[in-house]
Amino acid sequence: MAQDQSQLPIGVFDSGLGGLTVLRHLRERFPHEDFVYLGDTARIPYGSKSPRTIQKYLAQNLAFLNRLPVKAVVVACNSGSTQAHTVKSDVPLYDVIGPGALCASLTTKSKRIGVVATRATVLSECYPNEIHKLKPEIQVFQQACPLLVPLVEEGWDDDPITNLVVYRYLSPLLASNIDTLILGCTHYPILKKAFNKALGGRVQTVDSAEAIGDQIERDFQLHKLPAKHDGRTGTFKLYTTDVSDTFEALARRILAPLPCASIELAEV
Amino acid sequence: MAQDQSQLPIGVFDSGLGGLTVLRHLRERFPHEDFVYLGDTARIPYGSKSPRTIQKYLAQNLAFLNRLPVKAVVVACNSGSTQAHTVKSDVPLYDVIGPGALCASLTTKSKRIGVVATRATVLSECYPNEIHKLKPEIQVFQQACPLLVPLVEEGWDDDPITNLVVYRYLSPLLASNIDTLILGCTHYPILKKAFNKALGGRVQTVDSAEAIGDQIERDFQLHKLPAKHDGRTGTFKLYTTDVSDTFEALARRILAPLPCASIELAEV
Repeated sequence: MAQDQSQLPIGVFDSGLGGLTVLRHLRERFPHEDFVYLGDTARIPYGSKSPRTIQKYLAQNLAFLNRLPVKAVVVACNSGSTQAHTVKSDVPLYDVIGPGALCASLTTKSKRIGVVATRATVLSECYPNEIHKLKPEIQVFQQACPLLVPLVEEGWDDDPITNLVVYRYLSPLLASNIDTLILGCTHYPILKKAFNKALGGRVQTVDSAEAIGDQIERDFQLHKLPAKHDGRTGTFKLYTTDVSDTFEALARRILAPLPCASIELAEV
Repeated sequence: MAQDQSQLPIGVFDSGLGGLTVLRHLRERFPHEDFVYLGDTARIPYGSKSPRTIQKYLAQNLAFLNRLPVKAVVVACNSGSTQAHTVKSDVPLYDVIGPGALCASLTTKSKRIGVVATRATVLSECYPNEIHKLKPEIQVFQQACPLLVPLVEEGWDDDPITNLVVYRYLSPLLASNIDTLILGCTHYPILKKAFNKALGGRVQTVDSAEAIGDQIERDFQLHKLPAKHDGRTGTFKLYTTDVSDTFEALARRILAPLPCASIELAEV
């Protein structure tokens, strides 16, 4: 590419709007970088769908980001990340699985890690596989939590019903004496209050946004990824494959207190 | 068409597997008819998406059924039905809105009808519009219930958490003194137990499957739709746009005690 790569934005992709939790963190951490966000709201959720279908959607969405173009793509979606290895990319591709697995394996003392995620992520076994590559002796306990994304989308993130649902999902993990819990879906940090209530201070949580921020920071330092150095505050642009008032309201809620740019429609 | 139309199957379409509640009813009611079911599981749910996106998906799915071919199409999906008027069809197209609205307006005595449905169906105002065409004096109270489809898909259909969620959604409708409730999503009949608990016998429910069965029966009698008369027991075939063990298990659960045919993948 002839263009100065450092000036290009970083693309952030999610199946919907949960990845905005990652975008928010990356913007705070790298305030001079430009970002472009793409949410596949026309086909959300990915977490209940098959690997074949997720692969197809991921490839189409990454092609859209590469055409913009971007200097790197962050797959800020765990269900999407499970298929990131199947997609060709001209630019560095960051998925959330590796950084989350690394962070959790450095955090656990009891060598017992829990993973909460969508059904697709759990069935892919990506977290146990990544963790066992790093430390084969760690035991990993997984729990699929299909209701948590809909609860966030309904806006019931601080709600007794949500507390009950989270408590039910976490009970078998707590009974397994985990000391570290991977929030294996970018929607889940929005439910941190409910998680903290159910975990009662006994368990450390690992959140994708911070883990992937650490990895990008390392790559900036190692010059694997060219940082923008013009001192100007970065911008961000929001695309989704379906647009509605409900999506705009949810985007605004996740990004608050940051203002939410108007959303543009992407044909992927 | 040169082919004897009466011998063709009836196509039943839904965004996912909830429409199997309609298929099950139609098979019981018209045991000599053949049926083909198509569930758009690769893009489920429709209920949170925009009219434009639902239109596009509906047109693609109906084109698939027409290519098979079929002698009629039942849009056994309320969110899809809200856009049925935008789609061209060579064969009779039945949507669930009209029959449900008719049945409810004949049922209510207090002239106060409640509607529970997805957000797309509620925002389309299709039920109030249809009911007011029939009887302008009826008052219609709507409630979007985005969590009910995920609760069915999680298999929590007979569960205290589901009872709480249903009760919360129904409370404002009950406070409005409705005497009739339209279950405006084909997943909801699976939650009939929870609805009955919350309604406490005070309210009649109207279910899409029966309402659409009545309309098809009338059209058979009026020869608007040619019935199959060879005395042979009808068959049914199941297509979905995404295939997984989870979908197969849910299909089996909804169709029980009927056996579930193996699911074929449809490229729409």
